[in-house]
Amino acid sequence: MFSLKSRGVVQVTVNMASKGFIQNATLDFQRSFSKIGFIGLGNMGNPMVKNLMKKGHKVAVYDIKKDSVADLAKAGATGCGSVAEAVDGADAVVTMLPASKHVLDTYTRKGGILESVKKGAYLVDSSTVDPSVSQTLAPLAKEKGATYLDGPVSGGTIGAEAGTLTFMIGGEEDASKKVEPLLLCMGGRVVYCGSHGMGLVAKIANNMLLGISMLGVSEAMNLGIKLGMDPKTLMSILNTSTGRCWSSEMYNPVPGMLPNVPSSNGYKGGFGVALIAKDLGIAQSVATQSGIAIPMGAQAHQMYRMMEIKKLGDKDLAVAYKYLQGESV
Amino acid sequence: MFSLKSRGVVQVTVNMASKGFIQNATLDFQRSFSKIGFIGLGNMGNPMVKNLMKKGHKVAVYDIKKDSVADLAKAGATGCGSVAEAVDGADAVVTMLPASKHVLDTYTRKGGILESVKKGAYLVDSSTVDPSVSQTLAPLAKEKGATYLDGPVSGGTIGAEAGTLTFMIGGEEDASKKVEPLLLCMGGRVVYCGSHGMGLVAKIANNMLLGISMLGVSEAMNLGIKLGMDPKTLMSILNTSTGRCWSSEMYNPVPGMLPNVPSSNGYKGGFGVALIAKDLGIAQSVATQSGIAIPMGAQAHQMYRMMEIKKLGDKDLAVAYKYLQGESV
Amino acid sequence: MFSLKSRGVVQVTVNMASKGFIQNATLDFQRSFSKIGFIGLGNMGNPMVKNLMKKGHKVAVYDIKKDSVADLAKAGATGCGSVAEAVDGADAVVTMLPASKHVLDTYTRKGGILESVKKGAYLVDSSTVDPSVSQTLAPLAKEKGATYLDGPVSGGTIGAEAGTLTFMIGGEEDASKKVEPLLLCMGGRVVYCGSHGMGLVAKIANNMLLGISMLGVSEAMNLGIKLGMDPKTLMSILNTSTGRCWSSEMYNPVPGMLPNVPSSNGYKGGFGVALIAKDLGIAQSVATQSGIAIPMGAQAHQMYRMMEIKKLGDKDLAVAYKYLQGESV
Amino acid sequence: MFSLKSRGVVQVTVNMASKGFIQNATLDFQRSFSKIGFIGLGNMGNPMVKNLMKKGHKVAVYDIKKDSVADLAKAGATGCGSVAEAVDGADAVVTMLPASKHVLDTYTRKGGILESVKKGAYLVDSSTVDPSVSQTLAPLAKEKGATYLDGPVSGGTIGAEAGTLTFMIGGEEDASKKVEPLLLCMGGRVVYCGSHGMGLVAKIANNMLLGISMLGVSEAMNLGIKLGMDPKTLMSILNTSTGRCWSSEMYNPVPGMLPNVPSSNGYKGGFGVALIAKDLGIAQSVATQSGIAIPMGAQAHQMYRMMEIKKLGDKDLAVAYKYLQGESV
Repeated sequence: MFSLKSRGVVQVTVNMASKGFIQNATLDFQRSFSKIGFIGLGNMGNPMVKNLMKKGHKVAVYDIKKDSVADLAKAGATGCGSVAEAVDGADAVVTMLPASKHVLDTYTRKGGILESVKKGAYLVDSSTVDPSVSQTLAPLAKEKGATYLDGPVSGGTIGAEAGTLTFMIGGEEDASKKVEPLLLCMGGRVVYCGSHGMGLVAKIANNMLLGISMLGVSEAMNLGIKLGMDPKTLMSILNTSTGRCWSSEMYNPVPGMLPNVPSSNGYKGGFGVALIAKDLGIAQSVATQSGIAIPMGAQAHQMYRMMEIKKLGDKDLAVAYKYLQGESV
Repeated sequence: MFSLKSRGVVQVTVNMASKGFIQNATLDFQRSFSKIGFIGLGNMGNPMVKNLMKKGHKVAVYDIKKDSVADLAKAGATGCGSVAEAVDGADAVVTMLPASKHVLDTYTRKGGILESVKKGAYLVDSSTVDPSVSQTLAPLAKEKGATYLDGPVSGGTIGAEAGTLTFMIGGEEDASKKVEPLLLCMGGRVVYCGSHGMGLVAKIANNMLLGISMLGVSEAMNLGIKLGMDPKTLMSILNTSTGRCWSSEMYNPVPGMLPNVPSSNGYKGGFGVALIAKDLGIAQSVATQSGIAIPMGAQAHQMYRMMEIKKLGDKDLAVAYKYLQGESV
Repeated sequence: MFSLKSRGVVQVTVNMASKGFIQNATLDFQRSFSKIGFIGLGNMGNPMVKNLMKKGHKVAVYDIKKDSVADLAKAGATGCGSVAEAVDGADAVVTMLPASKHVLDTYTRKGGILESVKKGAYLVDSSTVDPSVSQTLAPLAKEKGATYLDGPVSGGTIGAEAGTLTFMIGGEEDASKKVEPLLLCMGGRVVYCGSHGMGLVAKIANNMLLGISMLGVSEAMNLGIKLGMDPKTLMSILNTSTGRCWSSEMYNPVPGMLPNVPSSNGYKGGFGVALIAKDLGIAQSVATQSGIAIPMGAQAHQMYRMMEIKKLGDKDLAVAYKYLQGESV
Repeated sequence: MFSLKSRGVVQVTVNMASKGFIQNATLDFQRSFSKIGFIGLGNMGNPMVKNLMKKGHKVAVYDIKKDSVADLAKAGATGCGSVAEAVDGADAVVTMLPASKHVLDTYTRKGGILESVKKGAYLVDSSTVDPSVSQTLAPLAKEKGATYLDGPVSGGTIGAEAGTLTFMIGGEEDASKKVEPLLLCMGGRVVYCGSHGMGLVAKIANNMLLGISMLGVSEAMNLGIKLGMDPKTLMSILNTSTGRCWSSEMYNPVPGMLPNVPSSNGYKGGFGVALIAKDLGIAQSVATQSGIAIPMGAQAHQMYRMMEIKKLGDKDLAVAYKYLQGESV
């Protein structure tokens, strides 16, 4: 079987970079982004700001929680008491907020981003929200002479800390290229996905498939093991057959199959059940608005929702394997 | 992105071989199997017999359809008028039948395999059936001094014709090694899965996961495309992210994404909806008997069943993509 | 078996009235509602306005479609060119609009209802929308000195024409009693459901259960009939056993079982697939926002969505029976 | 609202009887059934035998558990040491066994029922099993000059004790009439359902619908209550609207809604989760064999299976309401 070390996301990323998916950072980009505003300093935003600062950027930060602002101010950021203060004069503003309503509100309310944004600034929303948020805000930003992009990320808090996030961009392609050097301070890869909202569509579609696959692998492994198969033999067959998928190869949900994955560490860390449930909820909402059927996506959504109700919301989504066995973790 | 040619199942098979999963055929194995009985000469059995004969084996064939016997007799096989005639004196007997009841009947009825099997013979059932069939027949074979193995295959009619099937074996490991040279006349890979029934369990578990993944990819691609994404961009993002799976990378269900797959050829050929529905029905049945929950497997089963009812039973399972759009093919 | 005529909703309504659920209309209520504004003149709104006029009410009507206004003006209503004109000086305003965004917009935009509503007026929204719409608008109405109620209806276009709708009211109970005489001009029953939004919650919960039951009856009848049972025998067993439900007794989806139901008339009329899909979409959205699991509701939603995609959106929801058979209607 | 006492199954039964569904017991039937064999003396069989004896019948009983035989022998039955002994000379034989394989085995094995059955005897299998069991055994019984009927029951252990079971009969109609007086010693109603297997089909179809409805009511009540509705108001709306069903009216799953139902008594007694899961498993199996789609039935099956895995197997099926809340009972 091919080795664990030579396969997977890391290798792929390198290959993609060499094929030109990733533009090398230009040396002069710091001049283009002399002040960066950052709003939303939670588990993702905090390490993203720190990585921007490591690369030499000046970052003005704001959050409704004063402690979060103070924490980053100590680390060298400019702590701000309002959105306006963080946005004022910034060449780029990044937002990392919990849900659609927060993004819409932060942009459009009195004292919001759109009121004080500088002409020519780039606005990147990295929150995972409804794609229509991007389609609503982009023209409003344009009216102010600014450029809005949706740029949700994958990679989780670990990727945010390591600076290896993938940014999926929706909006104008040249604008995507302009902000790429900035985003590569926080991530390892920038993928241009199409017009406004398409970064979000890509993220939602991928995460829906992840949610489905993880349940599929959990059910297949559970079925085979309960019927008497050796878990490692079963995993190796799946990984070399038509059932092969990331959830089986790189993130197998059965404890002890792979080192360094949440399933081998009590399902701690990783990608939480509550987060995949949220993403599947967005997929559900978007599909419903457009009259699209997602029968498996809908059922996966309900299953993670049940796990959340069963107090597994902060466990890694691979805990689905234990959920099928009626076990607590 | 890594190239289409250098990845996937072929490469994997080679790697596995080099790591010792596949034993090289011994030169003298033809002496061990001087007569082979083969029962069940349908779309799979027919080319499997032909491949056995190409490698120099004498094969005595039987099917309830006389035409199927005559066809292979013309090609050089020994046509038989009964199971007993095909089995009599054979060193190995291969069965390739539609369903559990046919296998049980062919083995245990008056005039069946068990009545005329030679002491020391190997009996390999390559049908995809309930694992309990193997667990029922193995001890009965043992009483007769013969050795029974379950050895279902993956690869479909194309693999059967090309001689590239994968055999998944359940039963004694040394018996599996003994018949491996014989099976490699019809396939490219033999995987030992464990005790009796485990070959079937492996096949059923893998195919359940395949059935789920294909629906997941179909829903994710359909969602993204309908919301405005470019199909190839979306596919490339899935294939380099956590949604990555065989159904997306090697067998994408959207027409025009990949060459030489059924979705790019009107969903003709490939792995039929009726067959995946049958396999998911076995998974459902086995899970129910053992009190195992397979919520996603059950829903996938029902979706392929609906497609079959919609007269898509003989289309490749990737037709799920079109089904979600309410289109006929 | 108990007779078709003496059972069901009509009888129940009478019983409920006699137990005091329905207040008798006071003779002087026309004085309390000397001008009524009505906004939204579609398939539901049009006959509702006509029924108000039959009972002697003066109704000022508005719709974005001028033809709809003209049609009712011919029938005796006061045609208006704007929301403000219809609302100005009205003692009560009824809205019957397609979706949440239309209701929110019609109330809160410049020139909307809240701008020109008279102090002391009653505002009843009969649209089927997200319960949060009611919870958002009620306090805004209060600021203007008006009283807002959510009052979605059941009974469909037939009930709207016959004046037999059921109104489910959310808001203050005394306000519900005040508008009851007015609503009974358009309906046969007014049910007080609780605080703001609860009328909508009741409707959504009931329709989710209806959507699930209709699929359940369709599957049970289809299973029994395909396995050889006489359809009428099967129906009578279900109707006198634990499977008994409205969808089986009063609205059986198998053609020829009951007279005067859509299934016996080519699934024409009745409660459209597109409408139940819309209601299940609201249930899904509300459940997701509140972290509530509705696995069967979610699957029912997807099944009606698939029927809509299959161009069955304007057929009665009982067409689920035919859908399971893969037949077009 | 119509009163709890005057509605429902009891009333229905009376009405049905008056319309001739139930034949009055003839006075001389005890002569026709001078010895009755009864095999399978579990929670159902035990009280059924006692009710037969109360009506003056001589019953010869057998079970693989000797204690069960001894217990009934003390109560006046003829305890037997073998199937043959119980069947020998009996005018009628009733079987009440756990699953298809037990019924098939008890009839066809060496020393089984078919070997020692008396010419002219009636054989009624009251087990809930696959309809094909009846279709297999009926012709074998005929060869022996006996008459086989499938006669599964509804009513559970409470109905078995009270002698109010409903028997659903498949087989020849005149044979059904012949055994009716005997069955009415153990039950309150006999419904002729059609040819062999149809009694089982009726039971399976009804219970599938029950399983679906109970989940639907549980989800609808849970949704409405969590969103703020008063439970009794919500129940009364459902019960007078299109969501009305037995599971809401007669057996509401929310504690405290109805007296004397398991949900108001810690979900003890009633119809166990393990039993509805078993029945849905048979529905699934039968549907799969015949290529019938039951998407909602399949999902309901998986949900009860999950509850069973969660150690709720011996709770009443209404515990679904608690399951949705992630609570243990």
